[in-house]
Amino acid sequence: MLVLSRVKEAGTVATQSREIRLAARPRGEPVASDFLLVEVEVADPGPGQVLVRNLVMSVDPYMRGRMDDLPSYAPPWQLGQPAEGAAVGEVVASQVPDLPVGCLVLHPFGWRDYALVPDRQAERVEPVAGLSSSSYLGVLGMPGLTAYAGLFEVAGFRAGEAVFVSGAAGAVGSLVGQFARLRGASRVIGSAGSAAKLRFLTEELGFDAAFDYHDAPVRQLLRQAAPDGIDVYFDNVGGEHLEAALACLNLHGRVALCGAISFYNSTERPVGPANLSVAIGKRLTLRGFLVTDHGHLRQEFRETVTGWLTSGQLVVRETVVTGLDQAVPAFIGMLRGANTGKMVVRLASDPA
Amino acid sequence: MLVLSRVKEAGTVATQSREIRLAARPRGEPVASDFLLVEVEVADPGPGQVLVRNLVMSVDPYMRGRMDDLPSYAPPWQLGQPAEGAAVGEVVASQVPDLPVGCLVLHPFGWRDYALVPDRQAERVEPVAGLSSSSYLGVLGMPGLTAYAGLFEVAGFRAGEAVFVSGAAGAVGSLVGQFARLRGASRVIGSAGSAAKLRFLTEELGFDAAFDYHDAPVRQLLRQAAPDGIDVYFDNVGGEHLEAALACLNLHGRVALCGAISFYNSTERPVGPANLSVAIGKRLTLRGFLVTDHGHLRQEFRETVTGWLTSGQLVVRETVVTGLDQAVPAFIGMLRGANTGKMVVRLASDPA
Repeated sequence: MLVLSRVKEAGTVATQSREIRLAARPRGEPVASDFLLVEVEVADPGPGQVLVRNLVMSVDPYMRGRMDDLPSYAPPWQLGQPAEGAAVGEVVASQVPDLPVGCLVLHPFGWRDYALVPDRQAERVEPVAGLSSSSYLGVLGMPGLTAYAGLFEVAGFRAGEAVFVSGAAGAVGSLVGQFARLRGASRVIGSAGSAAKLRFLTEELGFDAAFDYHDAPVRQLLRQAAPDGIDVYFDNVGGEHLEAALACLNLHGRVALCGAISFYNSTERPVGPANLSVAIGKRLTLRGFLVTDHGHLRQEFRETVTGWLTSGQLVVRETVVTGLDQAVPAFIGMLRGANTGKMVVRLASDPA
Repeated sequence: MLVLSRVKEAGTVATQSREIRLAARPRGEPVASDFLLVEVEVADPGPGQVLVRNLVMSVDPYMRGRMDDLPSYAPPWQLGQPAEGAAVGEVVASQVPDLPVGCLVLHPFGWRDYALVPDRQAERVEPVAGLSSSSYLGVLGMPGLTAYAGLFEVAGFRAGEAVFVSGAAGAVGSLVGQFARLRGASRVIGSAGSAAKLRFLTEELGFDAAFDYHDAPVRQLLRQAAPDGIDVYFDNVGGEHLEAALACLNLHGRVALCGAISFYNSTERPVGPANLSVAIGKRLTLRGFLVTDHGHLRQEFRETVTGWLTSGQLVVRETVVTGLDQAVPAFIGMLRGANTGKMVVRLASDPA
């Protein structure tokens, strides 16, 4: 580990920092050598900028797509350039009156210790009593809004319906299942990849049923877990999970297509759901979505979820890895399912 | 051919008729021996019934599903029982005051010369000047409403959008493309299976582009035909067509999943669209639908389409086969694409 210090002597306008750069585009599963940890100097903020000391950064499945040089909704990371992604940090130097030194900001320049952030890309966030700053990367951030918008707006979930979510122990899935329960689902079913995660789902989060997708064909496991079928499927996984859900969806069922993590590291041609045409007779709707289209829900989402958190109705777990040098292993591990709840990388302690 | 005569002597309460029965459940493509043409006697109508002499009957792709003994939205035909499907006929004996002898009715007991129809299953229809009674099996009937509901309600087509329809020369597809054109599509593209059909689409129906799906990979043909992408895909075919459409759909594109004729005779496991996960980044919506859910549009549909027909803006072609003994070959041929426009089987001439 490097020792970091902010150098601010006469004539010195740079802060020593480290950043992770993409060194090579991964083929299949990323490996350590696809990345470089580099020491850099970060300039002092110019007009309209703040210098941020990152406290915590996010590793998210969607970032795998940004490592490929393919047209996508998020622009590819550039070789030799620092990686990007959500982070929460403390302003340590500011040329933005509304963002004074000491305040916390959410911004898109993670994967580094210090970041120079233009004011339009910095959202000031307030510490929430009892919650870590990393909440803004998870339950109160992008994954939380993804779960909220996907379940309520995209899938049109209504009280009394049965919901199945894949990747249920992950950042988004663990919230989808709980949001459904809190809004009156008749049954909440989740899939995950280990016995410990299944216990987490049923014993801590209040899922009605959970199964390990390694144990048998997913369709069979889902039928057992949802004998009366499902009305909503929140898809984080794609592939066999989606096919199983199509088989088990009831008339007028809806699928929120959120992610397809089963393919993210695949170098083979994906296999589409062979039974997609059941969507005709069952009048199913499948909708792909990105959270970026649902910003109009942000205020409602934060108020609702903060209420659930404050009242203790919502259980949030994080998997925390410490140190920028552990960010790449954290990302690789997250794609393998090493996390329960949101995976974050802690770079510095929250202010007291 | 049998000579049919309505016997109505003292004490005789039967009409000689013929009907087609399902003799065996087809494996793959149906063959003639899967059906039987049987002479039967049809009783005179009891209270609430009419006796109908069928003039014209429908053969539709969805009937293939009814030949299998699988749970589906339409109940399977029963072995040894007469086949069913839409027909238009003339009432020749009536115990229903609102359906007097001589009127035309649309009802679900095709595949036979005479049918005994309960009043709740008989819809009285009026001859439209210049149109055959078979119009109620096509442009003014189920295929017409399917096209209308699928394009406007399910896919949410709006003026200025580009529309692609597969099976474009068929009963539904030929209307989808024209409805889109008449409502201001920026571009209408169709796929079909012969050069004659392509000419029909572009020279008679006003499609902007059409391609023969035999000529090259569908994705390549569609990209050439829709260089700016498509906004709506009306899917009658499934399989490779659906995958190509997903690749070419623009942001926020919609797919109306209407049929999957490429699989109907298949004995192999269907292949799902390998690229379904593009629906996430492109925020696509895929909706399966059945026309039976859209009866609330029927009046608007008939008024609109009758207007287009009357003004000559809508071109309708039928493929007409004559005689009940030709109904099975007509059905088999329709699944192979032998028809241009709606395939119907004429059983008797329309009343003058």
